[in-house]
Amino acid sequence: MQTNVNDTIIALATPSGVGAISVIRLSGKNAINLVDLFFKSIRKNKTLISQKSHTIHLGHIVENEKILDEVLVSIFKDPHSYTGENVVEISCHGSVFIQQEIIQLFLKNDCRMADNGEFTMRAFLNGKMDLSQAEAVADVIASNSEASHQMAIQQMRGGITNELSALRQQLLDFASLIELELDFSGEDVEFADRTKFKELVEKITSVLKRLIDSFAFGNAMKNGIPVAIIGEPNVGKSTLLNTLLNEEKAIVSDIAGTTRDAIEDEIIIDGVAFRFIDTAGIRETEDVVENIGIRKTYEKAENAQLIIFLIDSNKFSHSKEEFLQEIEIIKERFPNKRLLVIANKIDTLSCHDSAILQSEIENLILLSAKQKTGIDKLKHELTSLVNTGALSNNETIVTNSRHFEALNNALKSIQSVQNGIELGISSDLFAIDIRECLRHLGNITGEFDVDQDILGNIFSNFCIGK
Amino acid sequence: MQTNVNDTIIALATPSGVGAISVIRLSGKNAINLVDLFFKSIRKNKTLISQKSHTIHLGHIVENEKILDEVLVSIFKDPHSYTGENVVEISCHGSVFIQQEIIQLFLKNDCRMADNGEFTMRAFLNGKMDLSQAEAVADVIASNSEASHQMAIQQMRGGITNELSALRQQLLDFASLIELELDFSGEDVEFADRTKFKELVEKITSVLKRLIDSFAFGNAMKNGIPVAIIGEPNVGKSTLLNTLLNEEKAIVSDIAGTTRDAIEDEIIIDGVAFRFIDTAGIRETEDVVENIGIRKTYEKAENAQLIIFLIDSNKFSHSKEEFLQEIEIIKERFPNKRLLVIANKIDTLSCHDSAILQSEIENLILLSAKQKTGIDKLKHELTSLVNTGALSNNETIVTNSRHFEALNNALKSIQSVQNGIELGISSDLFAIDIRECLRHLGNITGEFDVDQDILGNIFSNFCIGK
Repeated sequence: MQTNVNDTIIALATPSGVGAISVIRLSGKNAINLVDLFFKSIRKNKTLISQKSHTIHLGHIVENEKILDEVLVSIFKDPHSYTGENVVEISCHGSVFIQQEIIQLFLKNDCRMADNGEFTMRAFLNGKMDLSQAEAVADVIASNSEASHQMAIQQMRGGITNELSALRQQLLDFASLIELELDFSGEDVEFADRTKFKELVEKITSVLKRLIDSFAFGNAMKNGIPVAIIGEPNVGKSTLLNTLLNEEKAIVSDIAGTTRDAIEDEIIIDGVAFRFIDTAGIRETEDVVENIGIRKTYEKAENAQLIIFLIDSNKFSHSKEEFLQEIEIIKERFPNKRLLVIANKIDTLSCHDSAILQSEIENLILLSAKQKTGIDKLKHELTSLVNTGALSNNETIVTNSRHFEALNNALKSIQSVQNGIELGISSDLFAIDIRECLRHLGNITGEFDVDQDILGNIFSNFCIGK
Repeated sequence: MQTNVNDTIIALATPSGVGAISVIRLSGKNAINLVDLFFKSIRKNKTLISQKSHTIHLGHIVENEKILDEVLVSIFKDPHSYTGENVVEISCHGSVFIQQEIIQLFLKNDCRMADNGEFTMRAFLNGKMDLSQAEAVADVIASNSEASHQMAIQQMRGGITNELSALRQQLLDFASLIELELDFSGEDVEFADRTKFKELVEKITSVLKRLIDSFAFGNAMKNGIPVAIIGEPNVGKSTLLNTLLNEEKAIVSDIAGTTRDAIEDEIIIDGVAFRFIDTAGIRETEDVVENIGIRKTYEKAENAQLIIFLIDSNKFSHSKEEFLQEIEIIKERFPNKRLLVIANKIDTLSCHDSAILQSEIENLILLSAKQKTGIDKLKHELTSLVNTGALSNNETIVTNSRHFEALNNALKSIQSVQNGIELGISSDLFAIDIRECLRHLGNITGEFDVDQDILGNIFSNFCIGK
């Protein structure tokens, strides 16, 4: 990543391709002057540099008397822009040819192509947003469901920063006092109130734990909640999946960075993305190869957050005991999983059996994947198993694995401090842990000096033009 | 096409897909008020309706307390906007999800999806541009070479209108006088100066002829100049084509509306698009099937504007007479075509033969498609055969077949008038021809009442959002 922040950078800000308009964005100290060289306003002698920030101007981009296009130019003046620098947005006709002509014109004239995410990196470097907010920008753009979008928006508005920055400041204050004590180590003074300090450490521990706990949920919501559908061969797993796919629009995510083991079916139900994992049928067998498949199915189910267990309703007519026993076996195998038990093929059952099935067994969803009955009930159960309460309360949910790691490291350090206090060990021994904790917290928001490599890595995942 | 011009219309103005930003455009009397309902400025109590035209505002689009996105909103006030109505452009994060959320929000609130080209149609209906300019907007977006782009820009700036409107006005004035004479038909008066009238008719005829003549060139430049490469089997036609393709970037046009017989190779040389037409090899043969292929090759060559005839240099070493005779045959077959004769495989010739070939035969390009020698000379000849002088002089070039038809009809009418004057027939007989001519001219710029169906047809070829 080139990091010369004095360069004027340029990039197409809108998706490439043909549309009514395209927007080309320039940022840098000279951006407005540079555009002025090639912009002829429809009003005579009007220069962009003399215009107010946040204003729009109609004119032509002209290269050597040749009109490249009629454009609208938007002016944003330092510091009131996305990057905090002078920014110009050129709104031109949406042809690939024109986009290229205009970009090439500026590349020939003291401008360079922006790197991925460089506009946002400049926004961070110029203090327009902290690092966690900058990272959220990419998440906002990549979000494809209501839940992932809402979490990204919350983070972009400073969610995690708001949670942490006050606590970090208080910890920093204590750290200074404690380090001061060390300078007077011979005199046995205590500038830092130990009771209050202990309270703060406990508070930080609890907030960190809550944020860390939110990651499992946040990550699942961001990437789709993994759901394994298991059951005997021919119990209707594929039919159920197809029925669900046809009802809701399937989304095949092609966004860079969302790598998945295999192509799985993602279905968005009530704003939450579910990622359905195909599994081989399970049954008692002596066949070695088939048993390998079944073991894999159980592994996949183990990795899923939700399990849908499909059972043939006709089994119930045949033997109630066997039916119940099969359900028990699955429940025992996955004691810690959220499990939905579905009796499929309910359309082939007699009214009488169907009524008994419904009344005698609790928490059972009766469904016919083929006849598409009971699907709404299944969708309702699926979404109710996902606790979206945190979302609607606008709680901060951690979705970024870099943050997750930093939070875990901060927790480890603060727990060392806590242990130190409880064991009554000398403050110079835990001062170093306090500093470690401060560093990890600062890494999330970028308040602490963040390594250039880490910055480069974060922003290289962005698209160009952002 | 829905034509209720009081509706507020909305559409995505930028290409669909993922990018840094997307722009959603609304137009209509209530557009600004409508956006105000869901826009919360970062400054308290700021409403968009109270802001000046051509200003930009930062804030959030909020639906029932839920933030859909952080956006920049641009305001354009009637009549100072693209459509001439109140226009709002919402610049949001470039995710398909967010685009849809925001558009859906407004569709639920008194807004409807814009038809293809409806923004531009409103611009026309509100007198922001004439019809030929509106049509040029679609051409500007679709242009993929410098020449086609320049012609479209010229037309968008009113090229054809400037040529015709003064003449049409003068004709209109004469028409009134002549029709006035008819009211006094018993009295043998002449309000209209016959000499001046004749001059005007001659001038109109000459302008119409020039514009009509420009269409063949304009249409070729817009769609790519068709070039047929012909020659015996194995003379190196494909190799030449591949060499040209590798040197210049091939463009496969996927723009709607540019239908072509088959996929052909388009190569842009010096800003001009050439469309190379593949042909079967030609030679004397008794084979019936092969003769069909050869007949087709000649047909294709007949339809091309340029013909490249490839001949093997070794033929010259073999027999100078045969070599010259073959060239003569092709020249005689296509007396009206621009023909480039190329001696290929020059690398296999001895220095001696090659020197003789060069000195003895005029207008021959010596080339080795395989060794890539002589290609620059060929490209130079190709572009010099295309007279781009009209382009660089900013002359008006007709590229639109609707205009071409109207110009032809206008010419037919004005020639009837001319005949009438020369034959000295009564003015009431050619008054109707004058009116016809006025109507056809008016159809181009839309000054005359244009049929709703024609309007619908013109704008339905636009993309949505323009």
